[in-house]
Amino acid sequence: RYFHFCKLPGRVMGIRLLRFTSVVIIVLLLVAGALTALLPNVKDDKLPNLRREPKPQSQSALDSFTLIMQTYNRTDLLLKLLNHYQAIPHLHKVIVVWNNIGEKTPEEMWNSLGPHPVPVVFKVQSVNRMRNRLQNFPELETKAVLMMDDDTLVSAHDLAFAFSVWQQFPEHIVGFVPRKHISTPSGVYSYGSFELQNPGFGNGDQYSMVLIGAAFFHSGYLEDFQRQPEAVYALIDETQNCDDIAMNFLVAKHTGKPSGVFVKPVDIRNLEKDTNSGYSGMWHRAEHLLQRSYCVNKLVNIYDGMPLKYSNIMISQFGFPNYANHKNKM
Amino acid sequence: RYFHFCKLPGRVMGIRLLRFTSVVIIVLLLVAGALTALLPNVKDDKLPNLRREPKPQSQSALDSFTLIMQTYNRTDLLLKLLNHYQAIPHLHKVIVVWNNIGEKTPEEMWNSLGPHPVPVVFKVQSVNRMRNRLQNFPELETKAVLMMDDDTLVSAHDLAFAFSVWQQFPEHIVGFVPRKHISTPSGVYSYGSFELQNPGFGNGDQYSMVLIGAAFFHSGYLEDFQRQPEAVYALIDETQNCDDIAMNFLVAKHTGKPSGVFVKPVDIRNLEKDTNSGYSGMWHRAEHLLQRSYCVNKLVNIYDGMPLKYSNIMISQFGFPNYANHKNKM
Repeated sequence: RYFHFCKLPGRVMGIRLLRFTSVVIIVLLLVAGALTALLPNVKDDKLPNLRREPKPQSQSALDSFTLIMQTYNRTDLLLKLLNHYQAIPHLHKVIVVWNNIGEKTPEEMWNSLGPHPVPVVFKVQSVNRMRNRLQNFPELETKAVLMMDDDTLVSAHDLAFAFSVWQQFPEHIVGFVPRKHISTPSGVYSYGSFELQNPGFGNGDQYSMVLIGAAFFHSGYLEDFQRQPEAVYALIDETQNCDDIAMNFLVAKHTGKPSGVFVKPVDIRNLEKDTNSGYSGMWHRAEHLLQRSYCVNKLVNIYDGMPLKYSNIMISQFGFPNYANHKNKM
Repeated sequence: RYFHFCKLPGRVMGIRLLRFTSVVIIVLLLVAGALTALLPNVKDDKLPNLRREPKPQSQSALDSFTLIMQTYNRTDLLLKLLNHYQAIPHLHKVIVVWNNIGEKTPEEMWNSLGPHPVPVVFKVQSVNRMRNRLQNFPELETKAVLMMDDDTLVSAHDLAFAFSVWQQFPEHIVGFVPRKHISTPSGVYSYGSFELQNPGFGNGDQYSMVLIGAAFFHSGYLEDFQRQPEAVYALIDETQNCDDIAMNFLVAKHTGKPSGVFVKPVDIRNLEKDTNSGYSGMWHRAEHLLQRSYCVNKLVNIYDGMPLKYSNIMISQFGFPNYANHKNKM
C-alpha cells in the first residue's frame, strides 16, 4: 500500500526530472541563440570576408602585395615594366595575365636573364578577355593586390606611399586615376572625368570611382567578383571594357561608402608611345567613353540602383617631394 | 511507518529540487557572463564614449559644429574673427572663452550690432589659464568642435572641407597645423616641425600631432580631458603652454592611432600684425619651443610611455582651388 503512496512521489520525481531537463535544454537553446545573435555581423565587418580565403597567409604576405598585370600584344612594354617593378618595396609576387592567345610568353627569356628579386608567374589564358585579370588566382597569397595596366608606369615612391595608404583603407580601391559619374535630369547617367560637372555641386570636384588600372585593392574583392550576376560578365565581354567600373560598383555596394581613395601621384607615365608593336590601347577606340557611360547605366539596371558615392578627398604624401609641399602662399 | 519510507523520496526530491535550482542558476550565470563578454567593448568603439554626454543632440547639432575661441587682450582681432566666422557653413554656435580677467566682454557692443546669423556665448573666466578652452562647456551641443586661436584666420572653403573630412575621421584631430616629436639616441624627445628629421626616416616627412589652435575634434575629448592626471593640468598651468600637445597625447592613447589628420589649407593667415593691442602671442616667447619639448618629455613620464604615432597622410580637396590640382607635370 505504501508502494502506492511511494509511487506517487516517484512519478512526481519523474515529472520534475523531465521539467528539469527540458528547462535546462530551453535555457541552453537561449544561450546558443544569444551567442549567435551577438556574433560579429559579417555586414558590419566591411572587409571582404576573409573566411572565404582558404589561402595560407605568411607574415610577409600580410605586409606585402601582389602585382597583377594583364598584357596583350605589347611584350616589349611588358618586359620594360617587369624590370621597373621588380624592385618595388613590399612586392611579394608578379602575376602576368597573358592574353596573347596562341603566342608564347617571354617566360624563357625572362628566366634566362635572371636571377630576379621577385617571382613572376605567367598565367596563359585561353580566351582574350578584359576580365581575365579579375580571376581569384591560386598564386595570389597576399591580401593586397596592385593592379596595373601594361602601358602605365608609376614611380616606386608613389607605389610605396599608396600601399601604406591602402593599409589604412583596406576596404577601398586606393589608386591614382579618379573618375566620376553624373546623373542628368533625364535620369540617364554619364561617365567622365574633370570635364563633367555635377549640376549644383559647388567648389572643387568629386570622384565616384578609382580605376583599377593603377590601384591597390583587397584580394577578397577578386573572390567577390566571381559571384556577380551573369549579366555583369556578359556586359564586360560584350564591350571588352568596364571591368573596372564593375569593380567600383562591387566595392561601393560592399562598403556603402565611396569605392575609392584617390592618391595624388607624383610621377605616373603612359609608356604607350614606347611600344614597337604598333598596338595602341583599347581606350583609343572611338566608342570607348560612350561604352563606359553605357556600362554605368547597364550596371545600375543589373544591380537595381546606383551604389557609387562621391568623395572629394585627395591624399598626398606629407613633405614629399619637397618638405614644403604642405605650404601654400599665404 | 510508510511516512518513514515516503520521507526518503521526499528528501531525494528536495535534493533534486536543490540541484535543479542550482544548475539553472549556474546556467543563467553563464548566460549573463556570455552576454557581458559579448557586449561591444568601449575600447573597440574608438569614439569618445557618447553615453557620457547627457546633452540633447538636435538634428542640426549632429551635422554642425561649435566654434570655441579663447581670447586674451586682443578684442579688436576677436571682433574681426567673429565677423569672419559668422557665415561659415554648418556653424552651430560660437563660444568665446574670455581670459581677460577683470575686463568687460564686448558682448554689449556685439549685440548692439546684431542681428547675427549664429549665437555667440561669452564665457568669462576667473583665472587666465591656457586650458580654460578645454572645458566641457554646457553650451556645447554639437559632436564637432572647431577650436581656433584668436589670431588665426582660415578660409570658409578650408573649414567646410575640413569639417567634411572630420565627419569621415571623427576620432581624430582634423586640422591645418601638423607638428612632430622625434626621439634622440639619448632617449630624450624633441618637439618641432619640418626642421626636425627623424633619423633613418626616408623620403618625405611625418607628423605626430595636429595642433588644436586650428582644428576640428570630437567634443567627447573635452570630457576625457577632465579626467586626466593632475600632473597634466599642473604642467599646462606651470608653462601656460602645451594644452594642445596634451590633447594629442589623449587622442593617440584613446585611438591607438595617429592623433591627427592633416588637411592642407588653401588659405590660412595669421592676423597678429592687425591687432592694435600691441600684445603678441605667447608663441613668441623665447622659451616657447623649448617648453614644448619639455612638455613632450614630461607627458611621456606622466602617461608612462609615448602614445604619439606618425602619419604622412596629407588631405586636400580634389579639384580645388583649380580643377587640375590633382595633376602633376608628367
